[in-house]
Amino acid sequence: MKIKLNKIFRKKKAMFLAYDQGIEHGPTDFNDKNVDPKYIINIAEKGKFTGLIFQKGIAEKYNSEIKKSKVPLIVKLNGKTNLVKGEPVSSAICSVEEAVGLGAVAVGYTIYIGSEFEEEMLSEAGEIIEEAHEKGLAVVVWIYPRGKSVKGKKKRDLMAYAARVGLEIGADIVKLHSTGVKKDVEWTVESAGKCKVVVAGGVKKNERELLKDIKEAVSVGCSGVAIGRNVWQASDPVLVSKKLRKVIWG
Amino acid sequence: MKIKLNKIFRKKKAMFLAYDQGIEHGPTDFNDKNVDPKYIINIAEKGKFTGLIFQKGIAEKYNSEIKKSKVPLIVKLNGKTNLVKGEPVSSAICSVEEAVGLGAVAVGYTIYIGSEFEEEMLSEAGEIIEEAHEKGLAVVVWIYPRGKSVKGKKKRDLMAYAARVGLEIGADIVKLHSTGVKKDVEWTVESAGKCKVVVAGGVKKNERELLKDIKEAVSVGCSGVAIGRNVWQASDPVLVSKKLRKVIWG
Amino acid sequence: MKIKLNKIFRKKKAMFLAYDQGIEHGPTDFNDKNVDPKYIINIAEKGKFTGLIFQKGIAEKYNSEIKKSKVPLIVKLNGKTNLVKGEPVSSAICSVEEAVGLGAVAVGYTIYIGSEFEEEMLSEAGEIIEEAHEKGLAVVVWIYPRGKSVKGKKKRDLMAYAARVGLEIGADIVKLHSTGVKKDVEWTVESAGKCKVVVAGGVKKNERELLKDIKEAVSVGCSGVAIGRNVWQASDPVLVSKKLRKVIWG
Amino acid sequence: MKIKLNKIFRKKKAMFLAYDQGIEHGPTDFNDKNVDPKYIINIAEKGKFTGLIFQKGIAEKYNSEIKKSKVPLIVKLNGKTNLVKGEPVSSAICSVEEAVGLGAVAVGYTIYIGSEFEEEMLSEAGEIIEEAHEKGLAVVVWIYPRGKSVKGKKKRDLMAYAARVGLEIGADIVKLHSTGVKKDVEWTVESAGKCKVVVAGGVKKNERELLKDIKEAVSVGCSGVAIGRNVWQASDPVLVSKKLRKVIWG
Amino acid sequence: MKIKLNKIFRKKKAMFLAYDQGIEHGPTDFNDKNVDPKYIINIAEKGKFTGLIFQKGIAEKYNSEIKKSKVPLIVKLNGKTNLVKGEPVSSAICSVEEAVGLGAVAVGYTIYIGSEFEEEMLSEAGEIIEEAHEKGLAVVVWIYPRGKSVKGKKKRDLMAYAARVGLEIGADIVKLHSTGVKKDVEWTVESAGKCKVVVAGGVKKNERELLKDIKEAVSVGCSGVAIGRNVWQASDPVLVSKKLRKVIWG
Repeated sequence: MKIKLNKIFRKKKAMFLAYDQGIEHGPTDFNDKNVDPKYIINIAEKGKFTGLIFQKGIAEKYNSEIKKSKVPLIVKLNGKTNLVKGEPVSSAICSVEEAVGLGAVAVGYTIYIGSEFEEEMLSEAGEIIEEAHEKGLAVVVWIYPRGKSVKGKKKRDLMAYAARVGLEIGADIVKLHSTGVKKDVEWTVESAGKCKVVVAGGVKKNERELLKDIKEAVSVGCSGVAIGRNVWQASDPVLVSKKLRKVIWG
Repeated sequence: MKIKLNKIFRKKKAMFLAYDQGIEHGPTDFNDKNVDPKYIINIAEKGKFTGLIFQKGIAEKYNSEIKKSKVPLIVKLNGKTNLVKGEPVSSAICSVEEAVGLGAVAVGYTIYIGSEFEEEMLSEAGEIIEEAHEKGLAVVVWIYPRGKSVKGKKKRDLMAYAARVGLEIGADIVKLHSTGVKKDVEWTVESAGKCKVVVAGGVKKNERELLKDIKEAVSVGCSGVAIGRNVWQASDPVLVSKKLRKVIWG
Repeated sequence: MKIKLNKIFRKKKAMFLAYDQGIEHGPTDFNDKNVDPKYIINIAEKGKFTGLIFQKGIAEKYNSEIKKSKVPLIVKLNGKTNLVKGEPVSSAICSVEEAVGLGAVAVGYTIYIGSEFEEEMLSEAGEIIEEAHEKGLAVVVWIYPRGKSVKGKKKRDLMAYAARVGLEIGADIVKLHSTGVKKDVEWTVESAGKCKVVVAGGVKKNERELLKDIKEAVSVGCSGVAIGRNVWQASDPVLVSKKLRKVIWG
Repeated sequence: MKIKLNKIFRKKKAMFLAYDQGIEHGPTDFNDKNVDPKYIINIAEKGKFTGLIFQKGIAEKYNSEIKKSKVPLIVKLNGKTNLVKGEPVSSAICSVEEAVGLGAVAVGYTIYIGSEFEEEMLSEAGEIIEEAHEKGLAVVVWIYPRGKSVKGKKKRDLMAYAARVGLEIGADIVKLHSTGVKKDVEWTVESAGKCKVVVAGGVKKNERELLKDIKEAVSVGCSGVAIGRNVWQASDPVLVSKKLRKVIWG
Repeated sequence: MKIKLNKIFRKKKAMFLAYDQGIEHGPTDFNDKNVDPKYIINIAEKGKFTGLIFQKGIAEKYNSEIKKSKVPLIVKLNGKTNLVKGEPVSSAICSVEEAVGLGAVAVGYTIYIGSEFEEEMLSEAGEIIEEAHEKGLAVVVWIYPRGKSVKGKKKRDLMAYAARVGLEIGADIVKLHSTGVKKDVEWTVESAGKCKVVVAGGVKKNERELLKDIKEAVSVGCSGVAIGRNVWQASDPVLVSKKLRKVIWG
């Protein structure tokens, strides 16, 4: 079945609002406002994001608010807390079928390449991609090099490797952490081929620096961002969103 | 399918009688009276509990007594003994389908976040929630931070994290251990969003203190309690139940 | 489906002849006579046992002899050799469906609570009990506390815990090792509630002592025995069986 | 379904040509002649073997040659290389259904009792035996005590234990290594009951000794041999086969 | 079903262009040209390769280009990054069914014999071969001796062992690393019997040496090559391809 990327893209670019930090980091990332998914949905709508990333629980409990917002829903299928130490592993908590039932137009999955459990995640991602594609859903794969075996490796190589793994396993979009170096992003985008690349926002940083990084990334072929804390932790998230749209679509 | 929480709620509050200690702790928690499930069923009925929590074996062998009592049945799906040392893990012993056959209107499942086996439990909980929701059953998830990796972490953060994980994975109700500090419970309830929070009774404690804690918890949005030993180990369980109802429903 | 316990009970008591030692201990338990399953089937018939416990291989190869004897067949579903060291684990070798095909009216399964692999066995037992009950078969669960984590624990507590786990997971009958102390057995039977308790014979011991122990156990509510070596290693097994019937049914 | 042992037996005795050494030991066991499966098929035919043991790959690639020879085909379902160190484990590479499709009239499976992975193999063997018996195929189980836990155990006890495990789990034929002591083989055959015993040839040895051992084994109830290297490494395999037939059928 | 090897063979010889390095080694193997799958597809077409090896992601995203080229598609089903240390293991990321949907006429799978995880890969390969053969697809199995247990073993023996494992498990073609010694290749081809042998190109080496090695290999029965870096890293890949055709088909 033809994957309709345009459902989560606008003029070939993507701007996703990520909000899976509740399971990945816990509520320490939140304050009294942004702890509430409705606050996030509102930002996504006002900020004209092309996709909103939730775990299945939020997608279900706030389903009517999401539908009302008309922001396309991307359900993240796996997740883990940050309490567990050692080699990272994350298994599916939500099935593709359940995501479809929740109204998702795309699904997300994280793979920690380099982890001792890489094999498990690659294999599960393979099944998910097969099933999602059969149902016409796009798949966004978070690919993060992690674990003791990646210590000391060059960041540029790891970033390009992450992008390439996305292409090889059939991801439609790969989400990765950027080194922030233009040449690196360029090589990464080349490595990803026809698989789209979006960069993660990461920990909250200087706004100017963030926008400059994204602009540069987009200028060398990156399709956009999947950003969370830098938006919903901002004092004026809608304004930040506007600035983001400007650097992404010009 | 629409989850009918009102089956185990009364005027938006819940008071569950928990009796899974037989597998979790063994009969050392019991005396000649409360070792008998019929004694518990009688308390649940007289005490006007909104739900009664059993493992499948008790739910099956005492099914006619449970039905006669009219107390809604919540079947706990996983469990383990306290004999095993090391990182905790608990797998399903009962299927959702079997629970339905036993007359359950909701199911329960325990996840030890922070355990090396967190992934296994998150993943199994995900499947159970999907299936339970398809059948219209509510899911109560016990979320307890455990294992060597949570040592030294702040109790408040862990409690809020537990609540949030409940929301993220699609639990309808999350059962957790309270720190007993009002502000902490408030933040926890906020973190859980539309997922309801019930606090565990824990080891038997001073009745006055217990009631004060529950009253405070309810005042900041907590939906009620899932309580066991503090009730059925009491000299007058029906009286304790009455006091509980008072602090919960006012 | 209603479980018909009367198929392996007579006047509410049970006397099972256990013969799974071939896999659990090897032929060192046997001599030229009792190494032959036909010898055992003959004892079961003459001794008026209410159930005969075999692994699937014997149940199949000696099926016509078993049927001719009219002794109800209980197929033990899991097993392991005693060669493997470390934490004990035993997985199903025979399915419930296969046992039914062999003419079994009940099935057996062993769980080593306290073992690092407890979770695997509890979970598999859960599935087996569900399937067996759907087909109307009773389930006998051997529950033995084992592994390094149970070292030093009180035998009385462990025995009662084993019985309780049987009740909690839905066993119809729990088979356990008795401490031989009347009060302990009484508490154990109470802990098991509506789950029946049968005691294991264990290593061959003084006949008088054995009979006294069983009589006492039955007097405090125990449903009978699952006995092997004390019968088929005896010089006159039919006579021992007669004595057993006397202490069980009076 | 009735298992038709006569398909791989002749006058109640069996003489199997084993050729699974390619995966178990590698081509170091072979020379330019016997590296070729066609050479083996020819020996099986000329030597009037009652069964020919191949892994699925050879069974498929040389299927027309096997069919032409009319020697009954036994497909070995699991296997491993001898490169891996540590506790031995061997999983199914071929399904029962695939073996049937290849024309097998019986299937084979190896279990290393005493290995840390014993449980996995017992469990998989259980499923295979169930399925094979449903389809009317006989099952030959190789049972070899292995792993650090069997060090120092008496060889006689281990051999009898292997035979007994074969009976208990439902094997139709158990293949084991003989101690070469007549009394031991006798006890082993008794321990196996209605499960047939065939002895392995093992490493190539003195022909006279080999024939004497087999003759003795057969005289005490052993059903025959599953032999490989002693035949196809011989300078005149057809002559050796003739001598084998003589000691087996007299 | 009859396996149609002629779909990826020409006059009984094979010349496959391998391009699974993106996942196996990362983009460090690539430059600005060969990082692009279209560049590879073009070489495969111009170079008259008999098969083109891709992971499922590239097979899907570049499907129209592949189809246009008319080079037969071989989808590699498993893969791993080179970041993970320790005993190697690689699980299926793509199913046989999905490969068929992508237009594959053959599938590939890697097994690391000697690895602690050998069992997992042998078993998964077994299932894949069964399913692929049912659908009429040929299976190419990469067999590489790896892991701490193969240290110090003779390369010749390992190469022949790899080939033999391919035959035993039902591979149609085994891809292995050659020692480059004619006698070794000869023995390896004999060990593989009716299973075809293709040699890997390996790290880029002196062209003359490479061609000499391949010529020799083919002269002793090897069916051809599965080659990657030596072609697409060359300054004139089409010319190298022409030379390869010459040594393979003469």
